[in-house]
Amino acid sequence: MHALLFDGTLRLTRDYPQPALMAGEALIRPHLIGICNTDIEITRGYMHFHGVLGHEFVGTVVACADEAWIGKRVVGEINAACLRCTACQRGDFPHCPERTTLGIDRRDGVMAELFSLPISCLHEVPSSVDDDAAVFVEPLAAALEIVERCHIRPTERVAVVGDGKLGAMIVQVLRLTGCDLALIGRHPERWSLFQQQGIPCLAPADANAPYDVVVDCTGQASGLKTARAFVRPRGRLVLKSTYHGDSALNLSMLVVDEVELIGSRCGPFAAALRLLERRLIETQPLISARYALHDGIAAFAAATGQLKVLMAVA
Amino acid sequence: MHALLFDGTLRLTRDYPQPALMAGEALIRPHLIGICNTDIEITRGYMHFHGVLGHEFVGTVVACADEAWIGKRVVGEINAACLRCTACQRGDFPHCPERTTLGIDRRDGVMAELFSLPISCLHEVPSSVDDDAAVFVEPLAAALEIVERCHIRPTERVAVVGDGKLGAMIVQVLRLTGCDLALIGRHPERWSLFQQQGIPCLAPADANAPYDVVVDCTGQASGLKTARAFVRPRGRLVLKSTYHGDSALNLSMLVVDEVELIGSRCGPFAAALRLLERRLIETQPLISARYALHDGIAAFAAATGQLKVLMAVA
Repeated sequence: MHALLFDGTLRLTRDYPQPALMAGEALIRPHLIGICNTDIEITRGYMHFHGVLGHEFVGTVVACADEAWIGKRVVGEINAACLRCTACQRGDFPHCPERTTLGIDRRDGVMAELFSLPISCLHEVPSSVDDDAAVFVEPLAAALEIVERCHIRPTERVAVVGDGKLGAMIVQVLRLTGCDLALIGRHPERWSLFQQQGIPCLAPADANAPYDVVVDCTGQASGLKTARAFVRPRGRLVLKSTYHGDSALNLSMLVVDEVELIGSRCGPFAAALRLLERRLIETQPLISARYALHDGIAAFAAATGQLKVLMAVA
Repeated sequence: MHALLFDGTLRLTRDYPQPALMAGEALIRPHLIGICNTDIEITRGYMHFHGVLGHEFVGTVVACADEAWIGKRVVGEINAACLRCTACQRGDFPHCPERTTLGIDRRDGVMAELFSLPISCLHEVPSSVDDDAAVFVEPLAAALEIVERCHIRPTERVAVVGDGKLGAMIVQVLRLTGCDLALIGRHPERWSLFQQQGIPCLAPADANAPYDVVVDCTGQASGLKTARAFVRPRGRLVLKSTYHGDSALNLSMLVVDEVELIGSRCGPFAAALRLLERRLIETQPLISARYALHDGIAAFAAATGQLKVLMAVA
């Protein structure tokens, strides 16, 4: 089958072996696949992953021991947990130390004609949520993880630093809290959607700092430094970016300013689907370009510096 | 001037004295006034208040020492704080022990042709928020106080018990958190708006308890009992109702079930205005009837058992 993989080089192959159906898993044919910055970082060495790329998808279950799933339109959580360890026993599957991660860590991803995922990761997509919206469930859930981990109050001043793919989801989620929100970024050509939603968009030099809460989703070590400078004493800095390499941060100044640092990664899929069903998140204007999977190399080339690039599987 | 007052009896008078302009205050001509359940409870003895009723309004400043306010369209916080005590010094004006409260405690309310409020309570209404929406800012802020006080996570199951005036605001605010939400009430004739917004509405007998968080806005001691029964062990019960008389609650069972009880009253006006500007809250379908202020007695008679009854001041 066709698959887009990274083995030190980004390559499209036509003869990748089809995955076998494993116990407790489902084989899924993706309809639409999103390219995430994490995919691009993997091609730069992040996670030292080799295999089929991709973890953002909406697709149809084509094989599964539990026949009730066959034919269902689904999205899927990306962490395949062991379901037995103490993390799994407390319901914290994304932190199972035995987990494999779709297209990121020891598990082939979705950029292929077929891929496999545990049934326990699947969520059926309601008919009112179309494929163009459903393909955003994974990054939307990641944005929701911020409000799962942090109590963002309606009276707080909040800045999202980074106007890329993930920032576009995060500002739309934080807007719903009623907080006094600003998007800080370097791509004014992307701001009209957010401005229409009542979110002020600013260049870093124009930021009205300090803020009570700052979210860094710049995807760069230099962006983290900018974000940290905007946090008030006793404020919170939420880290959303994952990238290849270390970041430098003056931790003594975090002690002096008593700033809380909060990491936040994968989030709740059911809640993301609820927000899409309630028509509270716009996804259509975030789609920059569409490619076929067999044009995946061109899709990756186009994805850097764009909002969402999608790939369709015929 | 015309005024609707309670002095043991609800009375409309034509010759109530106009308020004097006090230092630091503004005289306001209300355009629209909302009737709240608290107003109805006051006529039953709540707070032992005698004077002009009412605290929900949108109006125009007609006199003020600071001329910049004159002619501004405003809404207003209802707690007139001393601005000097320790509560005020920590920014907690709604809990100033010296406060008077608009139409509720030692301060004439808004159901008159003119009333007075400290400038520090005023919020200018953006032009994009019309009077029919702005008159809901006070109850919407009260609903937002729940998410100001409690961290409601997108993964939590939440029930709002009470499908009245305040419940209508609360479910619309909680819907935005992404949580798994249900409205539990006894007025199916009011549910279509909420069902269109994707919120399941249920009779108490059909509740799918237990819930992680339950909000009681029934306005009745019996409703509190119902709400309490729906909270899971280690869950939270948020109290929003204020009414005349005591409530009975088995506190030992709260200890056994380790349930948190959280009182919540007045909330953040600026955040409420932001949600209305962002078009995230529907107010128009909540307006049950409109009266003129000089038909205030009829308006009060109509307000019991209805969603929002408004009074216009010519």
